[in-house]
Amino acid sequence: MEQIKIFTPATIANVSCGFDVLGLALDTVGDEMIIKKVAKKGVTITKIIGQNLPLETHKNVAGVAALALLSETNCEFGFEIEIIKNIKPGSGIGSSAASSAGAVWAINEILGKPFNTTDLVRFAMEGERLATGVPHADNVAPALFGGFTLVRSYQPLDIISIHTPNELFATVIHPQIEVKTSDAREILKTTVSLKDAIKQWGNVGGLISGLYTEDYDLIGRSLEDYIIEPIRSILIPAFDTVKQQSLKAGALGCGISGSGPSIFALSKGEETAKKVADAMKMVYEKVGIDYDIHVSKINKKGIKIL
Amino acid sequence: MEQIKIFTPATIANVSCGFDVLGLALDTVGDEMIIKKVAKKGVTITKIIGQNLPLETHKNVAGVAALALLSETNCEFGFEIEIIKNIKPGSGIGSSAASSAGAVWAINEILGKPFNTTDLVRFAMEGERLATGVPHADNVAPALFGGFTLVRSYQPLDIISIHTPNELFATVIHPQIEVKTSDAREILKTTVSLKDAIKQWGNVGGLISGLYTEDYDLIGRSLEDYIIEPIRSILIPAFDTVKQQSLKAGALGCGISGSGPSIFALSKGEETAKKVADAMKMVYEKVGIDYDIHVSKINKKGIKIL
Repeated sequence: MEQIKIFTPATIANVSCGFDVLGLALDTVGDEMIIKKVAKKGVTITKIIGQNLPLETHKNVAGVAALALLSETNCEFGFEIEIIKNIKPGSGIGSSAASSAGAVWAINEILGKPFNTTDLVRFAMEGERLATGVPHADNVAPALFGGFTLVRSYQPLDIISIHTPNELFATVIHPQIEVKTSDAREILKTTVSLKDAIKQWGNVGGLISGLYTEDYDLIGRSLEDYIIEPIRSILIPAFDTVKQQSLKAGALGCGISGSGPSIFALSKGEETAKKVADAMKMVYEKVGIDYDIHVSKINKKGIKIL
Repeated sequence: MEQIKIFTPATIANVSCGFDVLGLALDTVGDEMIIKKVAKKGVTITKIIGQNLPLETHKNVAGVAALALLSETNCEFGFEIEIIKNIKPGSGIGSSAASSAGAVWAINEILGKPFNTTDLVRFAMEGERLATGVPHADNVAPALFGGFTLVRSYQPLDIISIHTPNELFATVIHPQIEVKTSDAREILKTTVSLKDAIKQWGNVGGLISGLYTEDYDLIGRSLEDYIIEPIRSILIPAFDTVKQQSLKAGALGCGISGSGPSIFALSKGEETAKKVADAMKMVYEKVGIDYDIHVSKINKKGIKIL
């Protein structure tokens, strides 16, 4: 294999109760990447279409992730990467993760799969380190594994692929303001009350249980965030109204996607997910905020060859 | 039905990572109770064999739980309760929960099951309120539902029955010292670091996932407690050594049962669970501490008619 063209998905991290540990992959929202094997060693970013992002390998998340992978090989050749960027950076649906994960996944394919998926997460995390200062895995893991994933532990890295019910759809609205992950992290408190922490891990347990048993109602009841959402939601215009209207339109639950500003909702079935999209749009149209909106099945496969 | 004799199980609450939310029921450790329908209204505790506990209905956890149930009926008769107490109060394996849960379960049977299991948890929690000052559900829930249970939420009460793998066995050692639940609660901090909380809910997610997929290794990796165990274990003699030796003997994980002082370990298979028991015993024999020890399959059924 000399060249590969892939779809690499947008992802929703945290998923309300699972701050820093849970994530899921979207199916119809994502970037495309073309990765080509070339004689010249190293990694070159040849082109980025759709966004103004650095082409220098060391300043580009895909480049850095690819180099992390190659540093554990004796590869006698190199790679050129072209990125068709559909996910807006800073939107909160894993823009950097899609590029980082896509690069390492494609190179691993071309090399004949010397690395397992958890290894790929580890390499892709280096892209996240460049993007946010923190090598977090909650976006790159679902991009690489597909479906819902749990980052159980970082030391050692332990990623669990969680059963994902078929009828689960996500609606994501992206108000056109930028919230940097690093800023969204800074406003968080470093301590939480034990009482809230208990509620939170009760909900993590409930959500995971609901996913395995395909109990949509339990999934919905568990999509509550007592710790992060009350703080971060103040950075997002009309968050409470969007959430309220989404639930009213039939969403199982609604919360902040990653560090925002995108807001996601999960629904049972595409029809409801579309109704939720209409309800979300209405809120931002009323207050006059520009937005992008997506409705997507949960992507069980992750990155795909095109 | 005029009279019922039941086995009501001992339970392990918290299960390392799941403080205040997770619990499991034991199969061969528990109390027996005889509940008799009588003409006289109200609840009378007629006899308690094996332990010196109050017979006055309002001072007895079984009595209080039974009254909580009856207050939601128009019952024209009453009940006599006899308790054969095998679980030592203050041992940390749900002594009060067994009595509270047993009383309400048996009365519900005699009444023709007007209440569902979550209702029974709610009534039994009143017994826990009497015993510990806190109406917690993490022992009464597994006693009533069997297997592993998750208390996802208290407001509203939401108990989730979690799939329990067949080959899971518990070993429990009870050093003969008393740790009161109320004391064990008082030493806890009211805040925790966000960093530790994240690790904890990662493990809750991992444990629940491991239970559904019967991934014993993942169950073991998830049995880590970053928040409660470091504080409470100082109340338990030789805790670190017991834990270390249990893991060395093949246990998947080891931690404090409820608020202690009992220490539990989970193992795959009875043979390993027995080896773990030998390893635990050895530690307390060396330091000269009296103990009770139990090896039990996880009880998927909960309370049983004898």
